[in-house]
Amino acid sequence: MSDFSLFPADYLRHFCEQVFRSFGVSKDDARQAAEVLATSDLRGIDSHGVARLRKYVEFMNEGLINPKPNIRILRERPATATLDGDNGLGLIVGPRANELAMEKAEKVGSGWVAVCHTNHYGIAGYYPLQALKRDLIGWAMTNTGKWMAPTWGAERMLGTNPIAVAFPGLEEPPVVIDLATTAVSYGKVQIKQREGKPLPDGWITDKDGQPSNNVEDLLAGGALLPLGSNYETGGYKGYCLAAMVDLFTGVLSGANWGPFAPPFAGRGQFELEDEVGKGIGHFFGALDIDGFMEVDAFKKRMDAWIRRFRATKPAVGTPGPWVPGDPEREASLEREKSGIPLLAAVIEDLKVVAKITGVAFEESEGR
Amino acid sequence: MSDFSLFPADYLRHFCEQVFRSFGVSKDDARQAAEVLATSDLRGIDSHGVARLRKYVEFMNEGLINPKPNIRILRERPATATLDGDNGLGLIVGPRANELAMEKAEKVGSGWVAVCHTNHYGIAGYYPLQALKRDLIGWAMTNTGKWMAPTWGAERMLGTNPIAVAFPGLEEPPVVIDLATTAVSYGKVQIKQREGKPLPDGWITDKDGQPSNNVEDLLAGGALLPLGSNYETGGYKGYCLAAMVDLFTGVLSGANWGPFAPPFAGRGQFELEDEVGKGIGHFFGALDIDGFMEVDAFKKRMDAWIRRFRATKPAVGTPGPWVPGDPEREASLEREKSGIPLLAAVIEDLKVVAKITGVAFEESEGR
Repeated sequence: MSDFSLFPADYLRHFCEQVFRSFGVSKDDARQAAEVLATSDLRGIDSHGVARLRKYVEFMNEGLINPKPNIRILRERPATATLDGDNGLGLIVGPRANELAMEKAEKVGSGWVAVCHTNHYGIAGYYPLQALKRDLIGWAMTNTGKWMAPTWGAERMLGTNPIAVAFPGLEEPPVVIDLATTAVSYGKVQIKQREGKPLPDGWITDKDGQPSNNVEDLLAGGALLPLGSNYETGGYKGYCLAAMVDLFTGVLSGANWGPFAPPFAGRGQFELEDEVGKGIGHFFGALDIDGFMEVDAFKKRMDAWIRRFRATKPAVGTPGPWVPGDPEREASLEREKSGIPLLAAVIEDLKVVAKITGVAFEESEGR
Repeated sequence: MSDFSLFPADYLRHFCEQVFRSFGVSKDDARQAAEVLATSDLRGIDSHGVARLRKYVEFMNEGLINPKPNIRILRERPATATLDGDNGLGLIVGPRANELAMEKAEKVGSGWVAVCHTNHYGIAGYYPLQALKRDLIGWAMTNTGKWMAPTWGAERMLGTNPIAVAFPGLEEPPVVIDLATTAVSYGKVQIKQREGKPLPDGWITDKDGQPSNNVEDLLAGGALLPLGSNYETGGYKGYCLAAMVDLFTGVLSGANWGPFAPPFAGRGQFELEDEVGKGIGHFFGALDIDGFMEVDAFKKRMDAWIRRFRATKPAVGTPGPWVPGDPEREASLEREKSGIPLLAAVIEDLKVVAKITGVAFEESEGR
C-alpha cells in the first residue's frame, strides 16, 4: 500500500476550486464544493474526496449536473422546508440546505430541510460539523444508488444511505457520528479484493440472496448486506435504518427513492419511465442546544460523557475504547501536517480532470 | 412453547388500568399507561407488555416511582422543550412528552422534546404510532440500564437504546420501525437459554470483551454486542447509534446517561454518588408532513414505496421480503381475535400484582 504520494491539502483544495470554476460555478460555490471534498480527504475518508472529482467533472462536462443551479424553496414552515436543488452539485446544494436548517434552528429551536433534485453531497459528516460551530446539534442523511438487498430479498433496493450526527464538547473534542447503514462500504470490499482475500462473513450476498465470501458474487448481481448482516444477527435492523433514511431523503423530499435513486457512476442507464422523483434526496436537521439546556451545562455534560467512555475497561487484545469521531479527528491532525495520500490511480484521474478542464495539475506538488 | 394461556386484550387492559388506579394514578393516566402496555402485547412484543407490570407495581409499592407526577416544562422554544417527569411512570410521562412534541409539530412544523427524571416507557414504537394519527412522522428514543459494551471495550456502558420512527401510507399500512441498537435483546438470549442452545456468533462477549456463545459468560460480567456485532462487521456503527440515543435522551435532557442509567430491575444498587442526572431519559420528535409536501401526495409516494419493496425478488430459502412494521401488524390482527398469550410465569406475576394491589385477577379469563 505504498503506491501513493502526499499532496498538501491546500493545493488540492485550490485545484478543485479552479476545476469547479472552469464550469462557470460561482467563486463562493466553487470554494464551498472544494471545502466539502477537502474535509473528506483530511478526515481520512479517501473514497469521498478528490478521488471523486473526476466523476463530478465528467457529469458536468456531459451536462448531467447543473453548475449554476437555481435552488428553490418548494414549501416552508418555521421549522421545516423542502428544496429543489435544480440538479446542482450536491456539494453546493447540500451546504445551502444545511444552512437553512441551521437558520431555522436558531430561530425556533429546530430546523429540518428535505431536498430533491440533487446529486451526491460528499461525506455526510461534513454537515453536522458546520452545525457544531453554531452550538447546534446537526443531522444529515442522503440516499444513494442501490447496493443493499433488504433482509430476505435478493435484489439491490437501497443505497449505503448514511446517517451523520454531531454533538459538541466543551474542553473535549466533539462526538461525530457518520455511518453507512450497510455492514461495510463497497470501498472496504475493494480493499479485500486488492489483497486477494476472501470477504469476511456478513458482508455480501450472491444474486440469490445467499451469504457469500466471494467478491465475484457481489459483482454478478449480488448485494451488500445491511448493518447487522444476516437475520439472526439483526440485519433486519440495518434494513430498517436504510429504509428510514430513504423515506426521509427520497420519499418525503420528492426525489427518487429505493432502487430508482440514480447511481453515482452515471445515470445514462436510467430511462425516464424509471423515475419516481427528481435526482437523489438529502435530509438535514439542526437542533439548538439552548432550546433544551443551557449550552455550557450541556457541553460540560458532554465532556463528562466523553471522559467516562474513554475510560471504558479495554477488551483484551484490542486497541481499546474510543469515542465516535476519534479516528477521523486523528487522521485530520496527521494529514494537516503531512498531506493527503493520493493513490497513483487517483493522480491519473486528476490528470484527466486537468485535461478536460484546462486547469493545471502539478504532479510535482506531491512527494 | 405451549405453556401459555390466551387472555382477551381488553381484559388485561382493564386489569392494568385498575392496578395503576390502586396507587392513586388518575383515571386518564391509568388508562394511558394500560394502553401502552396493551399495544406492546398486541404487537407481539411480549417482553414490554403486562409481563412488566409486576416490576412497575413493585417500584410504585416501594415508593420508587411517583404515581402522581407533576410533569414540568424546564425549558421551551417553539420547536423544542425539556421536561422533568418528576419520577413518574414512563408510561404516563412518555405520552405527555410525545403529545407536546406533536403539538409543536402542528404549530411550527417540527417539535422535539427531551425528558429527564422519568422511567421505562414501554415500547418505543407506541409513540410514533400516535403521531401517525395526526399526519405526523413520529420519532422516539430512550436510554435504558446498561447491557452493551462499546466496540473494543469490556464493560457494559450503554443500554439497548431503541429508536422508533413511523411513516403513514394511504391505502397501505404504515411503515413502523422500532429497533434496539444491540444486535439482539436480552429476551432473545433467554429464549436460546431455555432451549439449551449455544448463542449464535455476534450476540455477546465475555467479561474480557472476547466473543462468546455461552450465556453464562454474559451473566458473569459479559455484555451484549452492538448492532453489527464485531468490529469487522460494523459493530462500531451499532455502538455509535446507541451512543447517539444516549446523548439525545440522557445527556441533552439532564437524565442519567451511559452506565449511570438506572436498570429496570431496580435501582437500589445505585448510590447517590453514582448519579449524573435524574432518572432515565427519553427524546421525542414529530415532523409535520404538510411542512414538506402535500399530505396525500406523500402518502401516495409511501404506497408506491411499500408496494415496490413488497415486490422485491425473494432470497432463496427464506420467507421473502417484508416491510418494517409487517410482523407487528400481523401479530396485532391475530391477537385482537385470539387473545394475548401469557406464559405461566407471567400469570404467576399477575397473581402477585393482584395480591399487592387488591385488584382481582381472574385466571379463568384465560384459555
